[in-house]
Amino acid sequence: MQRIFEIDPWKIVTHKLDKENKRLQESMTSIGNGYMGMRGMFEEDYSGDTLHGLYIGGIWYPDKTVVGWWKNGYPKYFGKVINAINFAKTNILIDGEKVDLAKDNISDFEISLDMKNGILTRKFTITKGDKKLAFTIDRFVSIADKQLFELSYHVENLSDAPVKVEFVSAIDADVANEDSNYDEKFWEVQDKNQSENDAYLIAKTKPNNYDVPQFTVGVKIEHHTDMDTQSESENDLMVSNHFTKEISAKGELSFEKRATVVTSRAYDDPATLKAAMETLSTKINAKSLDTLVKEQEQGWADRWEMADVEISGDDAAQQGIRFNLFQLFSTFYGEDKRLNIGPKGFTGEKYGGATYWDTEGFAVPLYLSLADQEVTRNLLEYRFNQLPGAFHNAREQGLKGALYPMVTFNGIENHNEWEITFEEIHRNGTIAYAIYNYTRYTGDESYLKSKGIDVLTAISRFWADRVHFSERKQQYMIHGVTGPNEYENNINNNWYTNFLARWTLEYTLESLKKVSSSKMNDLAIEQSELDKWQDIIDRMYLPEDKDLGIFLQQDGFLDKDIKPVSAIPEGQRPINQNWSWDHILRSPYIKQADVLQGIWYFINDFTPEQKKRNFDFYEPLTVHESSLSASVHAILAADLHYEDKAVEMYARTARLDLDNYNNDTVDGLHITSMTGSWLAIVQGFAGMRVQDGMLSFKPFVPKQWGSYKFHVNFRGRLLKITVDRDGSRIDLLKGEPMVIKLNDQELELK
Amino acid sequence: MQRIFEIDPWKIVTHKLDKENKRLQESMTSIGNGYMGMRGMFEEDYSGDTLHGLYIGGIWYPDKTVVGWWKNGYPKYFGKVINAINFAKTNILIDGEKVDLAKDNISDFEISLDMKNGILTRKFTITKGDKKLAFTIDRFVSIADKQLFELSYHVENLSDAPVKVEFVSAIDADVANEDSNYDEKFWEVQDKNQSENDAYLIAKTKPNNYDVPQFTVGVKIEHHTDMDTQSESENDLMVSNHFTKEISAKGELSFEKRATVVTSRAYDDPATLKAAMETLSTKINAKSLDTLVKEQEQGWADRWEMADVEISGDDAAQQGIRFNLFQLFSTFYGEDKRLNIGPKGFTGEKYGGATYWDTEGFAVPLYLSLADQEVTRNLLEYRFNQLPGAFHNAREQGLKGALYPMVTFNGIENHNEWEITFEEIHRNGTIAYAIYNYTRYTGDESYLKSKGIDVLTAISRFWADRVHFSERKQQYMIHGVTGPNEYENNINNNWYTNFLARWTLEYTLESLKKVSSSKMNDLAIEQSELDKWQDIIDRMYLPEDKDLGIFLQQDGFLDKDIKPVSAIPEGQRPINQNWSWDHILRSPYIKQADVLQGIWYFINDFTPEQKKRNFDFYEPLTVHESSLSASVHAILAADLHYEDKAVEMYARTARLDLDNYNNDTVDGLHITSMTGSWLAIVQGFAGMRVQDGMLSFKPFVPKQWGSYKFHVNFRGRLLKITVDRDGSRIDLLKGEPMVIKLNDQELELK
Repeated sequence: MQRIFEIDPWKIVTHKLDKENKRLQESMTSIGNGYMGMRGMFEEDYSGDTLHGLYIGGIWYPDKTVVGWWKNGYPKYFGKVINAINFAKTNILIDGEKVDLAKDNISDFEISLDMKNGILTRKFTITKGDKKLAFTIDRFVSIADKQLFELSYHVENLSDAPVKVEFVSAIDADVANEDSNYDEKFWEVQDKNQSENDAYLIAKTKPNNYDVPQFTVGVKIEHHTDMDTQSESENDLMVSNHFTKEISAKGELSFEKRATVVTSRAYDDPATLKAAMETLSTKINAKSLDTLVKEQEQGWADRWEMADVEISGDDAAQQGIRFNLFQLFSTFYGEDKRLNIGPKGFTGEKYGGATYWDTEGFAVPLYLSLADQEVTRNLLEYRFNQLPGAFHNAREQGLKGALYPMVTFNGIENHNEWEITFEEIHRNGTIAYAIYNYTRYTGDESYLKSKGIDVLTAISRFWADRVHFSERKQQYMIHGVTGPNEYENNINNNWYTNFLARWTLEYTLESLKKVSSSKMNDLAIEQSELDKWQDIIDRMYLPEDKDLGIFLQQDGFLDKDIKPVSAIPEGQRPINQNWSWDHILRSPYIKQADVLQGIWYFINDFTPEQKKRNFDFYEPLTVHESSLSASVHAILAADLHYEDKAVEMYARTARLDLDNYNNDTVDGLHITSMTGSWLAIVQGFAGMRVQDGMLSFKPFVPKQWGSYKFHVNFRGRLLKITVDRDGSRIDLLKGEPMVIKLNDQELELK
Repeated sequence: MQRIFEIDPWKIVTHKLDKENKRLQESMTSIGNGYMGMRGMFEEDYSGDTLHGLYIGGIWYPDKTVVGWWKNGYPKYFGKVINAINFAKTNILIDGEKVDLAKDNISDFEISLDMKNGILTRKFTITKGDKKLAFTIDRFVSIADKQLFELSYHVENLSDAPVKVEFVSAIDADVANEDSNYDEKFWEVQDKNQSENDAYLIAKTKPNNYDVPQFTVGVKIEHHTDMDTQSESENDLMVSNHFTKEISAKGELSFEKRATVVTSRAYDDPATLKAAMETLSTKINAKSLDTLVKEQEQGWADRWEMADVEISGDDAAQQGIRFNLFQLFSTFYGEDKRLNIGPKGFTGEKYGGATYWDTEGFAVPLYLSLADQEVTRNLLEYRFNQLPGAFHNAREQGLKGALYPMVTFNGIENHNEWEITFEEIHRNGTIAYAIYNYTRYTGDESYLKSKGIDVLTAISRFWADRVHFSERKQQYMIHGVTGPNEYENNINNNWYTNFLARWTLEYTLESLKKVSSSKMNDLAIEQSELDKWQDIIDRMYLPEDKDLGIFLQQDGFLDKDIKPVSAIPEGQRPINQNWSWDHILRSPYIKQADVLQGIWYFINDFTPEQKKRNFDFYEPLTVHESSLSASVHAILAADLHYEDKAVEMYARTARLDLDNYNNDTVDGLHITSMTGSWLAIVQGFAGMRVQDGMLSFKPFVPKQWGSYKFHVNFRGRLLKITVDRDGSRIDLLKGEPMVIKLNDQELELK
């Protein structure tokens, strides 16, 4: 645990320029507007350790796969979220000397991200000899004008003599990804020009060998200032404008840079793109800074009105949930259905890819409650549109049907570890589950009948081909898988995988009864195929131990040397940074919910006894070294009235990045798991469930808290749930009257 | 199967320059003398597809590890056998035009490797316009003077006009390995010079970051010819001498190049190395070519006298066994105890490393019978000397004792796939078994007591830490391993591994009773440790199926969809080139003997019924996609009187490379598995066993053969075994009288 920012309910703020933890600071002060975003790196050059990261949604490059030992079926490339051309770059010179906070004499430093409006403010006072200047720098990516990056400077001369200040504002295409497989850079400049006050640069991603489209990005920068335009300059990969002014003693100065960013995702013709860049820039630059800020504030205020969770009595918890929601919405707010929720969002380059099963497993339940139904439907359609890629993946493994990828931009698998790529096939089950989850929550069967059924059928065909029949046991089995607990590889009969496979077949059979006959024709399903699915359902092997009354994570699990996590010697955690891989694999320790993930998905279908026995057995073996683990445990602990455990797990998910629990937030934030703290509160503490179209709650207040409030969106209504020491109140803020259950009592809301 | 050479009992010969299969041709015409060796690539530049490969024993480079996803404990480098500086390089010009057999008009081509003497001869006639010349080129690496590479040309002018011929004889340090991880080259030139008739070059391997010593190689070339020395030339990485002569119509020409190769392995001071290079070169060049050839012939004749296996009635089989013995001895004849038997010997660069468990498993039994006892003892000492590396490997995995590497030069693991590196730990068992095998065969306990016991104790400590106790089963288990059958990864309780682990502990306990008390003190074994080992022995879990009467390859094996190899659809074999890795893993198909490997090691200890049931169950599931598989099956099939199966397996091992069975001989020969054909004949067809100090035989003659003869060396005696249709005869050629068993009858040999 490492806490480098102050506790504040609405701000991520520190007064220390922490050079040792600069990357961590940058991760935490990331901003985004769904369209683009960036880490909290400084605009000016910084000679200390830093990770430059500025990204545009949907702009990626297929980086040639690197492996030690090739295995048949490995993907040819790993899709990387690439560092976009750097339009934030702005150097500052004081009497001709470059500002470099790694070296300069700095005081009154502050960096503060205001989650109410998404504006990142940096302040510092710099002393160079007898010169002393105070800087205030604000930046944001606008949620009103997605293409706008706004950067403004206010400089005060604190010295008794005039000081000359120069800004060199640039667009730089000479950027790289640190984790580029072959140290390649990915951009080629197509066009650029600059005049005194503005400049533009249009760059295209390099050609590739994989039939992946190239992307073009155009950026125009314009400036608002009363400084003198001194000159402009360029090199092959950069354009820049220079502005200078002498600030009189005790005088002030303002400088504003706006970058308008367009891409070939919207304008695929080069001429159209360039024209759009000009038009948009003109439009954006016609607004005053005041207007831009007001629109930004209003945009975030609207989001918070729908989504804010208020916690009284625990500012650390309050800050945690807001930070998670803020970063999640900065990454994805459902406006572009071709985008998804990358594991690092716009906060880092690690992992690559845009889409993991995290989206369906962990983000869908949140967006169902906190956004328009359309947003979740878009997430589902994203997968429907990638069916061709999923068919490709299954074919690569010699299997029928569709296998959704571990990580992808276009549906085609990018990951290249055999135990994950080829074996962590449970992901397919979650893709199916999300269709069910959406349909159950919204009551809307139209997606299921029109597109969802295609996905379900394709996944069912995969399962039916992937199982085998064990003559000896006279049951269907699934050998050679990796479950959600990635600390077990190539295991046989992972209960979770087998359970989800069987459930998918059941749900598909049930859903097929609802679709039109023309759809049935399109799907070309024969009766023999349906019979085969039914046979698999009837005879699927699900490992369990009757004595212990638990489902078995996999065959042979109980043969392990089973000791609780508390028996791991001091200093050996996290085990994935301390133990050799074989040691982890043969240990009983669980990275993240596995059997319990299945129980969470179908929490209404298990008895309290089943839930208790499995939780009591597996939770003590779980090291929670995946960011996805704590939330599931918080929800189940709450369900079992293990309130302290639920709160412990909440703290871990809510402040995972803020407190750098897994010691890896330097690489970027754990975006997809940021839904976890909301799930822990809403499904955990408040016990929200949906069954047979009815919403229900069984809330409690954690001991440490005074009260908490949140909203949910359900079938056209907006509800406000308030839970405090005296009980719970549910208000219907919008929509038709409805009946819900509160603590097992039906209640009509008007 | 692909046969590109002619059937000949003593020669590897073809009359076709097969440009499509040039690499395969080169692999098959490799030569070596234990000290150095090379593929059959041409000396002159060849613009077609070719793999340059010229290697010196023990000269390697630690190439930085490349992986897709790093796992804790992975080795930092992969040791590569590097291409030595190219001292064979000799270009030929005809009237100023370079000879390039890829493009020139060629006739009467022949390439022929004479296994009787190790001389490689190439002949061709080249026509350029009205010029026509016949070339005969002989080369060998001398087994009398290990440092000598000899190359001689005889040229006849078949034209009616004089032709000017030029030789450009070089030493070139500008060489690379095709599989260099980061496209680096590994040599730096230290010193070089040339005069009219000779030249030298001294190069050192580049510095590295891993505390691995750099190696220096010095080569001097001298020439014997009556051609004119025209000039010499050089560039930064090369020296060369030029020789020209006009051959009159129908005239002839001879040209001879000798390269003397010394290394820092023998002379670690640069001045001493250079002096030794000069002295040796002078000594070697004082001999006539005739003398050099005679010594070479005598050297090989001596080897064949001891080792030849004669087969009548089947020239393909005859060629196979000789080719294997020839290539094996070319790689290793036991003269340098710091060397071992690399998987490709001097025939290719793939795999890297010098030492695999193949040496102990498959080469030791052959060298025990075909070489001085000292040779095998040197192989054992090699591992004793690498104990520090083996301790390091175990520590990297957080384990006690010693873990011998999958592949290494210095004892430190080089391999980097977790399922192999960390989990294929059965290799440790074979290191222990070889000590037992040597002691049993030779009756010499001195190695066991002085050094072997250190190795056994260190390995036992590893096993004792690596097992865990299953509370549920009340037995010791070994989870998370890969057995010899690498088509199963991360399995639990591989019978072979558990069996060998238990056996190692037993053999160590038994051996400790024989060692001196001072040795016992050095080993620092406490009684509690011995008690623990005994407890593991007593309660080791060995999976078996009582109904089928078989040992189980691993837990859960019988749950698979078990169908014989014959059920694999046409066109899908070898499965490792056609199936995705997960498909292979969950299939029942076995890459190489696994349970059967254990039965072979302890063939005297199992009942005929046990052997039969296991063979009948596992053999039909085995795809033999490892070169080590067929020999074990041949021996067991013979043991079970499955004579046809034994012969089928013999054919596969004997002609594995000659017939390119696994479609990978282009990369080099399968050197370590070349012992297999000899084992199949001697332990298989002739049924040789050793028990309680007595040698026994139960021979049969394969239907296709008339007879066969071979020799074995046993405790100071040399025996000749002749097996034909009328029965078997055993002659004692050398040594004291002894008693052996032939077909279960004791027989005194005088």
